[in-house]
Amino acid sequence: MAETDLAQTTAPSNPRADMEALDALERTLFSLRYAMGEIGSLGPVIDPPKATAQRGEALAHLQRMSTEALCDPKVGELLDRLEQEPELVGETRLAQIKILKRDRASLVDVPAEEQAAFSRLTVEANDVWRRAKAANDWASFEPYVDRIVDSMRRMAEYMDSEKDPYDVWLNEFEYGTDRAFYDSFFSQVKDCVVPLLAACMTSRHRPSHACVDGSFDTERQWRMADDLARLEGLDMDALWIGRTEHPFTAGLSRDFVVVTGHAYADNVLSNVFSILHEGGHALYEQNVDAAYAGTSLSEGTSMGMHEAQSRFFENLVGRSEAFAGPLRAVLAKHFAGQFGRVTAHQLYLAENCAEPGPVRTEADELTYPLHILVRYEIEQMLFSGEATASDIPRLWADKYRDYLGVRVPDNTRGALQDTHWSDGSFGYFPTYALGSAFGAQLKAAMVRGGMDFNAVCASGDLAPIRTWLRDNIWHWGRAKDSGELIEAACGEPFSAKYYTDYLTEKFSSLYRL
Amino acid sequence: MAETDLAQTTAPSNPRADMEALDALERTLFSLRYAMGEIGSLGPVIDPPKATAQRGEALAHLQRMSTEALCDPKVGELLDRLEQEPELVGETRLAQIKILKRDRASLVDVPAEEQAAFSRLTVEANDVWRRAKAANDWASFEPYVDRIVDSMRRMAEYMDSEKDPYDVWLNEFEYGTDRAFYDSFFSQVKDCVVPLLAACMTSRHRPSHACVDGSFDTERQWRMADDLARLEGLDMDALWIGRTEHPFTAGLSRDFVVVTGHAYADNVLSNVFSILHEGGHALYEQNVDAAYAGTSLSEGTSMGMHEAQSRFFENLVGRSEAFAGPLRAVLAKHFAGQFGRVTAHQLYLAENCAEPGPVRTEADELTYPLHILVRYEIEQMLFSGEATASDIPRLWADKYRDYLGVRVPDNTRGALQDTHWSDGSFGYFPTYALGSAFGAQLKAAMVRGGMDFNAVCASGDLAPIRTWLRDNIWHWGRAKDSGELIEAACGEPFSAKYYTDYLTEKFSSLYRL
Repeated sequence: MAETDLAQTTAPSNPRADMEALDALERTLFSLRYAMGEIGSLGPVIDPPKATAQRGEALAHLQRMSTEALCDPKVGELLDRLEQEPELVGETRLAQIKILKRDRASLVDVPAEEQAAFSRLTVEANDVWRRAKAANDWASFEPYVDRIVDSMRRMAEYMDSEKDPYDVWLNEFEYGTDRAFYDSFFSQVKDCVVPLLAACMTSRHRPSHACVDGSFDTERQWRMADDLARLEGLDMDALWIGRTEHPFTAGLSRDFVVVTGHAYADNVLSNVFSILHEGGHALYEQNVDAAYAGTSLSEGTSMGMHEAQSRFFENLVGRSEAFAGPLRAVLAKHFAGQFGRVTAHQLYLAENCAEPGPVRTEADELTYPLHILVRYEIEQMLFSGEATASDIPRLWADKYRDYLGVRVPDNTRGALQDTHWSDGSFGYFPTYALGSAFGAQLKAAMVRGGMDFNAVCASGDLAPIRTWLRDNIWHWGRAKDSGELIEAACGEPFSAKYYTDYLTEKFSSLYRL
Repeated sequence: MAETDLAQTTAPSNPRADMEALDALERTLFSLRYAMGEIGSLGPVIDPPKATAQRGEALAHLQRMSTEALCDPKVGELLDRLEQEPELVGETRLAQIKILKRDRASLVDVPAEEQAAFSRLTVEANDVWRRAKAANDWASFEPYVDRIVDSMRRMAEYMDSEKDPYDVWLNEFEYGTDRAFYDSFFSQVKDCVVPLLAACMTSRHRPSHACVDGSFDTERQWRMADDLARLEGLDMDALWIGRTEHPFTAGLSRDFVVVTGHAYADNVLSNVFSILHEGGHALYEQNVDAAYAGTSLSEGTSMGMHEAQSRFFENLVGRSEAFAGPLRAVLAKHFAGQFGRVTAHQLYLAENCAEPGPVRTEADELTYPLHILVRYEIEQMLFSGEATASDIPRLWADKYRDYLGVRVPDNTRGALQDTHWSDGSFGYFPTYALGSAFGAQLKAAMVRGGMDFNAVCASGDLAPIRTWLRDNIWHWGRAKDSGELIEAACGEPFSAKYYTDYLTEKFSSLYRL
């Protein structure tokens, strides 16, 4: 076989046939992605209990098929040949080739056994973590953390032996980032938010959430969720809203996005902001250029840029004073008894109480990045060898005390709270904080470009914001990286300053500092 | 490449490696089948409107990947080599090899362009049919019928040039059948049912359905459907019940079966019998031997044998006088006002009114096989060249008049009523009638083996029936064909006599002939 392949690469190239081969590869990858998307997103929402094991097997094998299709040596040669014909190939296919080569590079040098072992390890670790979290039992999960970090170090070595392993993974989750980038980002966040939060906590003026306390029928909340999705501007003909404990969004294509949320009778705002948040992810997926359908470009470009969209609609729009009017109207439509009497300003205050707590997913806009900071610092220590898993509970407690002023009550609400490490997603958390900062910079660019942002939010018609984001971010799909997108949209490279300025201004005003 | 492959087949074989290759192939086919099952069954139930087109593309490509995996020349050689090592390979893998070779033979000789053209043609035809049915417009659909028959004739020629093309397709949908088999079967059905129906229609004693007429809240009907599924003995932890206009069952694995039904406020029995029917299909899928999970054996063996199970629970159990007691109790639990006053005998009569009508899916147990007979005879004429599509409306009207005494009001309720022909499923309809006959023969064998069938139905605990069917039919999956299963379970080959005897006895008694 080797001879045949070699013969093929040295033979005169046939770019037309090569382009057809590229299109066929993309169809295969798209079909497998679509299948994994549908199985992986609808499965946990609607499958009966016994379906779990075989779903896992099917998903694992589909993933393997996708990896094999991409890592076929012929594909490497194909992409190299096509890259040498830029004029014939055209802009879109060149972008596809760039993304396919990058995806391939993440996989092709890691031995299949190493990947399979990592997959088995994380499946087992996730199962152990689930039980450990329920039982507040750090000891049972602890060895898995060290094993996963070891395995990820080894894989990073295969992927790029010249780079620091943690840098390799940071770059995997957000192309173009490394420790130097995040160190600078987080030091600015820390220098701003830690003292700002401390000042808020000692202020005599503290917003109250009393006006949103009460009991709210959950079926009504779901009808309200539909209205919120419409208010946000989602295409309801390309959306399915499901119900899960942990909300998520899965974009199968621009024509089919799955969004899930939850409804708690005692916390109506939880439903509101989880729908606005997931809706931001969904808007991104629904607005990728239709010309990219079925290709590797037909998704959001990165975790950070995705989180930028979700937090944009959750916070920069959703928790703004200007948007409190339209939001109050939706709440009052479904819960007239309670919200008929609430003013937009009261609602705005209730949405923005900064309350340091131990749990990330319940954090407000101000304390949220500090939760991420804790995880980033610990991940770095684990990868550098400065700490091992046994140090985590102590590190966790110290950092929560120092940054948030919070006492961690137990491991369940401490280092066991998140699923990410058990999944082998070290390097993923930082994108959450970065997304908020991307969003603040994008908003500043909109305003600088002449948009009356507050007037748009107050009008309840978000079309100008969506148009701006579609033109500058969404429609590009994966064709441009987050760094390129920010620079093109904002006329300057990424800067954390817009984010820290925004938080400072908003919370200084709210707490009258 | 050819040389390398050839070298491999002539080299000393390595059966262990071959078995691993077989297992890997099965995993690939299983994963693709699982993906197509989830996308194809949940998609139409829950996807938003815009999702349709890309779902179709993804499904078509996954199907192509499955075909390519199976038709790879190396797979043919692999299966041949393994077949020569029966002792090492073992019984289960030998059955897998038998099934894989058969599935492969249906595909491997048909040129890929022919398959692709057929796929495109039927997608288009289905779309045209949908609009034609709505508009009562036979003319627009007519040319597609001729084109599909032509295409199926050509494909049959590739598949087995020595056989009559319609025989090839009959055998595809029900292994071991041909025109000779069905001619004999249908002539017995015709000779029995046509005069029997005519006698019923002139009888002075006709059962009444007045006791089930009324209006029934559809949400209550869905809660009743859950109880019916439990009464039938379905594993609720491996079942998802969805809502569609046209009920269907999809078995993704024994651990996950999708069943759909419909609820009409003015016809509670429609929901009852569609759930019992689809539940029969689901019981089959849920009870395939666990050892076959993830292999080509992990499904029901044929269309006819599947329909045997669904009609068994719908009719032989569901519409029996003995089961009317337990069924009445479920109806009375959910609709006490109406069914509190209805007796089991009244319900039994209401379930069994023979009423010739033009629409197959609304047919009762007695007239149902006549609807199939009409289609079988017309299909045969189309494939033999005795008729073309332009003759169909006239043939349809004549046969409905002669066999059912029915005047066909329009093409919407005539030759355009079913989707099957537009999908290219010529040869599929006969399995529907055959399934009923399989079921009657299986019931006779149960009784001959000592089961007090009526007592089991009357008790409401169907476990003895399920156990019998599981041991004799269900657990074999695809490892045995329908003919083998019937012969092993009943101690004799298939015979239509049990079916005609059953219908004669039941309806003679109901109509006091």
